[in-house]
Amino acid sequence: MGVDSVGSVEEIARRAKAASRVLATLPTGIKNGALKAMAQALPAHLPEILAANAQDMQAARAKGISDSLLDRLMLDEARVGAMSEALMEVAALPDPIGEVVKGWKVPNGLLINQVRVPMGVVGVVYEARPNVTVDATALAIKAGNAVILRGGSLAMASNLALTKIISEAAEKAGAPPASIQALPTADRESVDQLMKLDRYIDLLVPRGGKDLIKNVVANSTVPVLWAGAGNCHIYVHADADFDMAEEITINAKVQRPSVCNAAETLLVHRDLAGSLLPRLVSSLQAHGVTVHGCPTTQALPGVIPAVEEDWYTEYLGLEIAVKVVDSLGEAIDHINKYGTLHSEAIITKDYEAAKTFMAQIDSAAVYVNASTRFTDGAEFGMGAEIGISTQKLHARGPMGLTALTSKKYVIFGSGQVR
Amino acid sequence: MGVDSVGSVEEIARRAKAASRVLATLPTGIKNGALKAMAQALPAHLPEILAANAQDMQAARAKGISDSLLDRLMLDEARVGAMSEALMEVAALPDPIGEVVKGWKVPNGLLINQVRVPMGVVGVVYEARPNVTVDATALAIKAGNAVILRGGSLAMASNLALTKIISEAAEKAGAPPASIQALPTADRESVDQLMKLDRYIDLLVPRGGKDLIKNVVANSTVPVLWAGAGNCHIYVHADADFDMAEEITINAKVQRPSVCNAAETLLVHRDLAGSLLPRLVSSLQAHGVTVHGCPTTQALPGVIPAVEEDWYTEYLGLEIAVKVVDSLGEAIDHINKYGTLHSEAIITKDYEAAKTFMAQIDSAAVYVNASTRFTDGAEFGMGAEIGISTQKLHARGPMGLTALTSKKYVIFGSGQVR
Repeated sequence: MGVDSVGSVEEIARRAKAASRVLATLPTGIKNGALKAMAQALPAHLPEILAANAQDMQAARAKGISDSLLDRLMLDEARVGAMSEALMEVAALPDPIGEVVKGWKVPNGLLINQVRVPMGVVGVVYEARPNVTVDATALAIKAGNAVILRGGSLAMASNLALTKIISEAAEKAGAPPASIQALPTADRESVDQLMKLDRYIDLLVPRGGKDLIKNVVANSTVPVLWAGAGNCHIYVHADADFDMAEEITINAKVQRPSVCNAAETLLVHRDLAGSLLPRLVSSLQAHGVTVHGCPTTQALPGVIPAVEEDWYTEYLGLEIAVKVVDSLGEAIDHINKYGTLHSEAIITKDYEAAKTFMAQIDSAAVYVNASTRFTDGAEFGMGAEIGISTQKLHARGPMGLTALTSKKYVIFGSGQVR
Repeated sequence: MGVDSVGSVEEIARRAKAASRVLATLPTGIKNGALKAMAQALPAHLPEILAANAQDMQAARAKGISDSLLDRLMLDEARVGAMSEALMEVAALPDPIGEVVKGWKVPNGLLINQVRVPMGVVGVVYEARPNVTVDATALAIKAGNAVILRGGSLAMASNLALTKIISEAAEKAGAPPASIQALPTADRESVDQLMKLDRYIDLLVPRGGKDLIKNVVANSTVPVLWAGAGNCHIYVHADADFDMAEEITINAKVQRPSVCNAAETLLVHRDLAGSLLPRLVSSLQAHGVTVHGCPTTQALPGVIPAVEEDWYTEYLGLEIAVKVVDSLGEAIDHINKYGTLHSEAIITKDYEAAKTFMAQIDSAAVYVNASTRFTDGAEFGMGAEIGISTQKLHARGPMGLTALTSKKYVIFGSGQVR
């Protein structure tokens, strides 16, 4: 799939729009058939995929790319198998398209239905994770959209190989041509072009680091749906159960520290400064966590002083900022000021405190007595997700299939005029 | 409310964010009380409003502003009364905030509720219609949002007078300070600043012409909700009832040609070229409509040849483009190519044709046997609207109160960890 055979970014977008017209009314059975065909095609083309990936890996190693990035880039039989499974899981989800979301009759007799429809053409801009190529395609196709994939340059060979395999499989199973396309280049210019093609592209989903998202949000004329950072908080209220507070704090910080729903700041009510606070800090330290503390917390052994910047920081590793607060109100103000509106939890036995926290915290997910780690499509029972939105428009929290859909009104009349 | 007393655009936004925290949990009664207080305050301050408006009108006349713009700018007792009524109507609407949109329990016992919440801070950028100041504020406050108003320079004195009156009334009735603020200047720079304050502003609503919307969409880092142009179509299928086709065509074109849901193009099936087409064209002409026709239509008396640009044009006046098409499919392709995805209607007796049209037309509102003029918040029974969205993200079609809301998850646990 070279530059010559597919043409310009605009031409790719134009072809995607044409495909989206057909995809929009494709029966569920054909869409699921395409997903299953993709799931079968991947292991059947394993040598091809691994060869392309070896090429990417070699080039990345030559560039001195970090081990963690190499690990994200690397494909093996198990990881290709996982992509296949993801496709089968999406095939098993109910088809969101065609749902009558609302319907009512107005006095003049018009029957108004609000119906769920595909978005149209979805562009996905991502970095060096080849699995996004398949995961994003699965959700886009199931929701009746054409997809344009623009992965990072490091994974170029892998992404093009995967795209070729799944797009051919989908087409054989009845999806229209150009349902699944990858941009042939990963230069900055191709993203710049994609972001301005609002005539053809209905939604752009940037998946990756802050700079990628910032660039897309600032420059896109295509509407954007992004998955933001997670500076998540645990607030332990004065009356919290000590065991529960410790278990949730450790789980939220330690179980998988590299993900966006892991906790980054612990707030503890001042009444617990002499009792639970030392226990929580030493338990975190015993789990290998570096503690950045407020003045009160700094009095405890091994605690590094927290600076202003720490309260804003998403460590994504075994570090945490700890602050003692005087009240529930101070905790809420701190979270709304420093947080990223992702996921926050209160640990309390107090009904009113729980109610106030739920009402006043302005985040996508607000927990009472549970770990922030549950903010996840699968944990929410939605099936696959394309990320966790921290924006307030359209989709907020785990974004499943419906995040890639729109709604339209269909109105049944019998000659009504105004 | 001069520059000195309110400070910079950023300071206004920061104050709005603080107000939004309080507004988010304000009881329905207080919000409605604030709306009613505003409704009473307007007629009570009529001389002040008319004096400010006279100032704007005088300056506008001195600038040689067109009569139609002057008419939009002009306020009198009746128009101020209409603003008051609009406030009372919004007060009477159900409060959208707090609605549990969905709720379910997952196997580990977590109870997940998806709850409707305010957007936060809503910025409205508009042109020379002072009534937008009041209408937009009414919807924003009812949905629990703080609002920042940036009207056009022509209406500056009117807008500042209106804002002062309604914000003071709201505050006396229990709304927090800075719930309703106007930018003190109407220069381009103030909009540029507003568009970049995503740290404080959650949603920007541009209301006005194409250039205004294009500028905001291209440059805003704040999520945008816009009301686009309406190049609406009527397609008359081969088997249409002649009387119904004529009545709907005339209504959609003539009843109020200056609005976005008026028809701009008429498509007629070729089977009707010798029968209904001449009748429709002469009826349109009898209503004062200039007809731009395709080659077949040009054969009729008084028809001007349509050029390619006509199919893209939103005339917003007594002009229409008329094209004869060979099939339903050609009509659908024409609409999806040239339309603005606003409102389209098919006139037919055929069940399958209606079904195909509804499924394949990619517009916010698709009608069978009714005028496109019904795409309107009040006609849809939603009450007041802030415009008709032709974007696919978040809100599509008439945007009522819920367009100014977001949703968040609140999760009730009992110590769950992963």
